[in-house]
Amino acid sequence: MDKVLKEITPKSSDFSQWYVDVIRKADMVDYAPMKGFMVMKPYSYRIWEFIQEAMDRRFKETGHENAYFPLLIPEHLLAKEAEHIEGFSAEVAWVTMGGREVLPERLAVRPTSETIIGAMYSQWIHSYRDLPVLINQWANVLRWEKATRPFLRTTEFLWQEGHTVHRTADEALRETLQQLEIYREVIEEYLAIPVIQGVKSAGERFAGAVDTYTLESLMGDGRALQTATSHFLGQHFSKAFDIQFLDEDGVLKYGWTTSWGSSTRMIGALIMVHGDDKGLRLPPKVAPIQVVIVPIGRGEDREKVLAHARDLAASLTAIARVKLDDRDEFTPGYKFNDWEMRGVPLRIEIGPKDMAKNQVMIARRDTGEKISVAESDLLTKVPELLNAVQDELFRQAKEFQQSHSYAIANYQEMDQYGYRGFFRGDWCGSEECATRLKTETGITIRCLPFGESPVTGHCVVCDEPSQYRALFARAY
Amino acid sequence: MDKVLKEITPKSSDFSQWYVDVIRKADMVDYAPMKGFMVMKPYSYRIWEFIQEAMDRRFKETGHENAYFPLLIPEHLLAKEAEHIEGFSAEVAWVTMGGREVLPERLAVRPTSETIIGAMYSQWIHSYRDLPVLINQWANVLRWEKATRPFLRTTEFLWQEGHTVHRTADEALRETLQQLEIYREVIEEYLAIPVIQGVKSAGERFAGAVDTYTLESLMGDGRALQTATSHFLGQHFSKAFDIQFLDEDGVLKYGWTTSWGSSTRMIGALIMVHGDDKGLRLPPKVAPIQVVIVPIGRGEDREKVLAHARDLAASLTAIARVKLDDRDEFTPGYKFNDWEMRGVPLRIEIGPKDMAKNQVMIARRDTGEKISVAESDLLTKVPELLNAVQDELFRQAKEFQQSHSYAIANYQEMDQYGYRGFFRGDWCGSEECATRLKTETGITIRCLPFGESPVTGHCVVCDEPSQYRALFARAY
Repeated sequence: MDKVLKEITPKSSDFSQWYVDVIRKADMVDYAPMKGFMVMKPYSYRIWEFIQEAMDRRFKETGHENAYFPLLIPEHLLAKEAEHIEGFSAEVAWVTMGGREVLPERLAVRPTSETIIGAMYSQWIHSYRDLPVLINQWANVLRWEKATRPFLRTTEFLWQEGHTVHRTADEALRETLQQLEIYREVIEEYLAIPVIQGVKSAGERFAGAVDTYTLESLMGDGRALQTATSHFLGQHFSKAFDIQFLDEDGVLKYGWTTSWGSSTRMIGALIMVHGDDKGLRLPPKVAPIQVVIVPIGRGEDREKVLAHARDLAASLTAIARVKLDDRDEFTPGYKFNDWEMRGVPLRIEIGPKDMAKNQVMIARRDTGEKISVAESDLLTKVPELLNAVQDELFRQAKEFQQSHSYAIANYQEMDQYGYRGFFRGDWCGSEECATRLKTETGITIRCLPFGESPVTGHCVVCDEPSQYRALFARAY
Repeated sequence: MDKVLKEITPKSSDFSQWYVDVIRKADMVDYAPMKGFMVMKPYSYRIWEFIQEAMDRRFKETGHENAYFPLLIPEHLLAKEAEHIEGFSAEVAWVTMGGREVLPERLAVRPTSETIIGAMYSQWIHSYRDLPVLINQWANVLRWEKATRPFLRTTEFLWQEGHTVHRTADEALRETLQQLEIYREVIEEYLAIPVIQGVKSAGERFAGAVDTYTLESLMGDGRALQTATSHFLGQHFSKAFDIQFLDEDGVLKYGWTTSWGSSTRMIGALIMVHGDDKGLRLPPKVAPIQVVIVPIGRGEDREKVLAHARDLAASLTAIARVKLDDRDEFTPGYKFNDWEMRGVPLRIEIGPKDMAKNQVMIARRDTGEKISVAESDLLTKVPELLNAVQDELFRQAKEFQQSHSYAIANYQEMDQYGYRGFFRGDWCGSEECATRLKTETGITIRCLPFGESPVTGHCVVCDEPSQYRALFARAY
């Protein structure tokens, strides 16, 4: 792998190029030889594994089980729910040949699995005793995108998609919101990314949903990213796929369904929220390496320091994910830059003078602060510092979000902020205003935040009486 | 889900139908609406998760990292290694349309990933310092099969595929064998399936490999199943994909590569090795439910027993995966059959008389034995019994394998055993004899078992001097 560290574009001068520089130089991804596809290298895949563990444990604790449904979906199934196929048809990749034969019906590579899962559920569910069905799937999906960007928008991505069926609308809605809360918890507590929770406006809903609930986060360039969504599907899919059950009262009823998803896109958010001009900054809970040890010693000191650093690494392995950088072809300064680029939360430096005093220097990636720590305190100090970094990254991100949030009475006010940030304002509820806003400014309604509607002001676009308080932003 | 338990076909009268009955009635899989595709329901997917955990921990302990490579592979890449494309071309599903456009080059849905990974490795590897590269991927793959069978041969399946690059042939070969040993350990110790280790004959090698190492297991009908394979690829792929590195001596050299895979097929083996006429028998280490508690009490006793069973379940949850069957629509007898069908290792029965004596009855699924256990002993007795079931299932499987293993001097001897079992005999090494054997009897060379060649006897087919001791069997 290319060990020549090159400068990355400053975040402030070209955020978009900075992002691409960081993910390449931090060894997160590589571009595959087919347009739109990326390779998740071990360093980013490990982050995905930590996210998976945190999510999956919570899914299981709330009664969900994992299963696996087919990658390919026959065209007639995909087309059963009218809004759904309309929303996805332009993005589907089609398998038309199997082996050496042309297939009688083309098969979609799943862009999402409501349809194939709906077809199966209709066969599995007969009685109210079969409900609820609480199933999640970890899988790859394909959406044929014109413009792609690693983690944020790629033709293939990894995700989890939950699909549940309930006896009542109430229960399904509770499920939808419970899963949104799990997403919030993992995204805030593990990824250290603050979120705004809300419901999507009609024009921004998932294709086929009654209501889409969303988490919206503010990236470092003032644009919004939808970090996870949870959909209340009502009876749209149960009617399209004939998911019926005989209720306790002897009446045949349609089930109420939900679906909810989160993807490797969250890793893109992680980079854009925390990264700086030196590269990544990873929250310790999802950092593949939490502590890197860099021995500093030349000549005759070299072996002595290295041996001591090995002992330190061994003793810290029980409490943290530790890496000893014993490469002899690089200087300590080069190594400092390298691990800063990769966002390792803590760096321990150890040289002959430190050794003589039984201490080490610890540098925090989040603040740049350097602290001298007695070796005898390391086993308590390292976990403390890791927690401190985790908290500090969240604090900084929250502060950034708050200092880039603006209340507006008229949409033209957004101009003075360069249309970057979270804008809170009133909306009349008409799709005309939403469309006008998008066309004129590129701004969309990210969500109607929880706990803020109904309101009694005036629409920021048309000035007519408003129905909703909305969160506006330019979005990824 | 259909709660009506129907009889399953006896294993001895029609093994093939028995297999299908068991997987359907134990709620392991369902057939998808497209020929050749199956759905892994939660009960089988959970088994896959236990296998994944056991494998993945060992992969990481031996220095491997996970990554993720694209699902689709451009045709020209797939065709770069001549033997490889020849071996897979008839089985590939092709994506020819993306969105509404016909693609300029068709893309293969990966049947395996040597080619796309090789293309990436050639860009990542420059110096001997970049080696070894030790990467694994958990993924879905597609092989367009004519005849399919759940778990054993399906168009799509889940697996892991490891792909490594080494500086020397020796190191690559050590890696190949180390991974084979990890497979052996997990398959024997978790799935309780005994294996024979060996190397494939030339005609049975993976397409593009120098040598394929394999684990072969004997199923309940006397047919063999290849449970995992590990390939020493030599420099075939590094030459096809130009994976070169500058060695310490300043010379540009080709890397030595390996690949190794294991799949959901192992779950098929699990069923066929341990199942009986009552259904599944699951080894405790991979059983989604290790202990089921069935309360027995009618009328006024019902609530009292149920409350007590709840307490028992709660106290056992810390040491085992426990399920309380509190369904009121079924009799205890029905429940016994139901959980036997699903292969739950231990069943705890508790009724008013047991309660009065502070004891429970425990029934073992492996032996059918019933033991009365004092409640105060449960926390020690349950783990003991789970270990005993794990060991006993392996012992029975090993005994079956041994009692169905035969030494033969001439291939016609296999006829008296109905061509069922493991046959050990000599082989001259010619593909002509292997082909003749297969054509006449359906028997193939499963492997050349470790530690048995060279030999000095006569080929069981042509009677010429032999080169190898071979393991022959009819295979899945």
